[in-house]
Amino acid sequence: MPNQEFIRYLENTSKKVSDYILNCDVVDYLKPEHIKESVLAYLRRPSKRLRPAILLLSCGSVGGDEEQALCAAAGVELFHTWTLVHDDVIDNDDLRRGQATVHRLMTQRGKTDMNLSESKAIEYGRDIAILAGDVQHGWSTAMFFDCALKHNVAANVVLTIVRHLQTYILNMLLYGEVLDVQLSLQNRDIASITEDDVIQMLWLKTGVLYEFSSIAGAMIGKNTDDLNDVQIKGLKEFTGNCGIAFQLQDDILGVIGDEKLLGKPVGSDIREGKKTTILLHALQNASSAQRQKLLTTIGNQKATTDDFEEVKQLLIELGGIRYTSHLAETYIHKALPNLDLLPDSRYKMLLKEWAEFMIDRRF
Amino acid sequence: MPNQEFIRYLENTSKKVSDYILNCDVVDYLKPEHIKESVLAYLRRPSKRLRPAILLLSCGSVGGDEEQALCAAAGVELFHTWTLVHDDVIDNDDLRRGQATVHRLMTQRGKTDMNLSESKAIEYGRDIAILAGDVQHGWSTAMFFDCALKHNVAANVVLTIVRHLQTYILNMLLYGEVLDVQLSLQNRDIASITEDDVIQMLWLKTGVLYEFSSIAGAMIGKNTDDLNDVQIKGLKEFTGNCGIAFQLQDDILGVIGDEKLLGKPVGSDIREGKKTTILLHALQNASSAQRQKLLTTIGNQKATTDDFEEVKQLLIELGGIRYTSHLAETYIHKALPNLDLLPDSRYKMLLKEWAEFMIDRRF
Repeated sequence: MPNQEFIRYLENTSKKVSDYILNCDVVDYLKPEHIKESVLAYLRRPSKRLRPAILLLSCGSVGGDEEQALCAAAGVELFHTWTLVHDDVIDNDDLRRGQATVHRLMTQRGKTDMNLSESKAIEYGRDIAILAGDVQHGWSTAMFFDCALKHNVAANVVLTIVRHLQTYILNMLLYGEVLDVQLSLQNRDIASITEDDVIQMLWLKTGVLYEFSSIAGAMIGKNTDDLNDVQIKGLKEFTGNCGIAFQLQDDILGVIGDEKLLGKPVGSDIREGKKTTILLHALQNASSAQRQKLLTTIGNQKATTDDFEEVKQLLIELGGIRYTSHLAETYIHKALPNLDLLPDSRYKMLLKEWAEFMIDRRF
Repeated sequence: MPNQEFIRYLENTSKKVSDYILNCDVVDYLKPEHIKESVLAYLRRPSKRLRPAILLLSCGSVGGDEEQALCAAAGVELFHTWTLVHDDVIDNDDLRRGQATVHRLMTQRGKTDMNLSESKAIEYGRDIAILAGDVQHGWSTAMFFDCALKHNVAANVVLTIVRHLQTYILNMLLYGEVLDVQLSLQNRDIASITEDDVIQMLWLKTGVLYEFSSIAGAMIGKNTDDLNDVQIKGLKEFTGNCGIAFQLQDDILGVIGDEKLLGKPVGSDIREGKKTTILLHALQNASSAQRQKLLTTIGNQKATTDDFEEVKQLLIELGGIRYTSHLAETYIHKALPNLDLLPDSRYKMLLKEWAEFMIDRRF
């Protein structure tokens, strides 16, 4: 398990980033009330805020001053947040961080504050969630600018960072979301999906923004606009691989995690038919009866609790969990040598612990 | 009618801006194909592109070099475009610039390219339109940066411009959209709506981005980050008022315009029950029978063509069109004196013609 100093750092970062966002002058522009509530909803809920943490650690690890990068850390959290709000609309999800998603919240508001009918309230909830995500998207960009406008980072560095975020990174991230939407709507046969497909999706949907967080932190730390700097490229490799490992661990916890620690229902991945390396590997090792059981239960909304329990046991017995756990470790092993490019420091040690946390975590 | 030099300027700007956008390196990042098609759809359709024009004219009018501001002109067009794509999803509109809206296009693609059922294709169309708008939003920000990264505008100027756009302007614009959504879903009684409410909405939904366009152009032209510069404030007043006049004229053309010149159906405002100053004024002057006719026809999807024709005649006879036309003129008269703060030049003359075009236009 990760040591206390790392956990303290994470908690401390999470609080600093939340405070920075919630005290920003832009909060005053948020109106009407439903937009304000929607924009701030996820930001007020407890969360690990791993992206800001990796950004600040990357900044410190190349000799930079964390305080100069705090607005960028807040910016990346806000950027991540709008993608969640829009993803939740697209996936029609009910819960985020243990509470109602923004569009669900606003459906409720439509009924109670505006006396709308059920169908109009659903429409209202969706509309406000789209617009609230748009507001967060704009705000997140602006937040990065404070590094230059208030904290003496060179303006060219900030422009290069945000241009990279708003073009390449954004396109990769949303490309991942489109592939996900297509996969889920087409109900594609699991046999047509390879492990490489799954890993590519994990990289697009998570690895890319992790990579960006480290790049941004290191560019601010070194006050450089050179995306090809050798330390920056090393940190990018490091976090991209850690991001994939993080998502693999997420898939594992989605099957065998502790609901209380996770703060979200375990087993919903099975119910929703999520294509994971756990499932792919289990199918490879399954007898034809086991294969039948897996394919008829996974993604079947009508399956019983007993069916799900049986599938969970199959995923374990057929080695899917062990395989994925091992796979996550290989990504961490691929990631770690990149830290050799950095001088020894407290930040480098915390980065190493951040990497280990990706796969050791139980929450 | 506007003179030939102004029309040539507008056509020329429209072409330059389209070319700039479509030749940008970011086009290569757009994937998969459905995202690329969605992102570029509206940009490939003919349009007046009044926002880029006002940005470039404002730049020139304070002595700046138009070429330096071209990327910002492209940026504001792209920014406007993503708001259209998201608005079309929210309003569930079918047509934009004479052709299918993005979500309708992608519903079609879902059916033909992916064999989706009708309901899944509608979901797909909506999802891709949300994400395509998000891509455009990011790209639009990045486009402004080229002023600094490639065209020698001071980086601080660009950061200040984009921060203003992504915080205050974006929030006002989407506040207008939220008010519109609330008004339409709540089916509010026309009697509870005042002319001030209507004008506020026009300002929020159009005036604000017009104001921004002139501010951005003038800041680039003067290479200053001072939002309180007296010429810049004058241009802001000028374009904000012109923007309201533009929308009032839009409402007039929505009732009595020529479909062929406009490229969109006339009468849909009546069908959709749009709250305009034309309607408010006509209601004030109506007899109780006329009032009854107006209220039962406007916004009534089941009304006949004869009903609509009768209402159109009522809106004219009761002075709604004349009143709104006069109102638009007063906004232009309020706008024009602000140009006195600028030195005489070809740009100042074109700005004056731009203002006159707002209310003289037939398309």
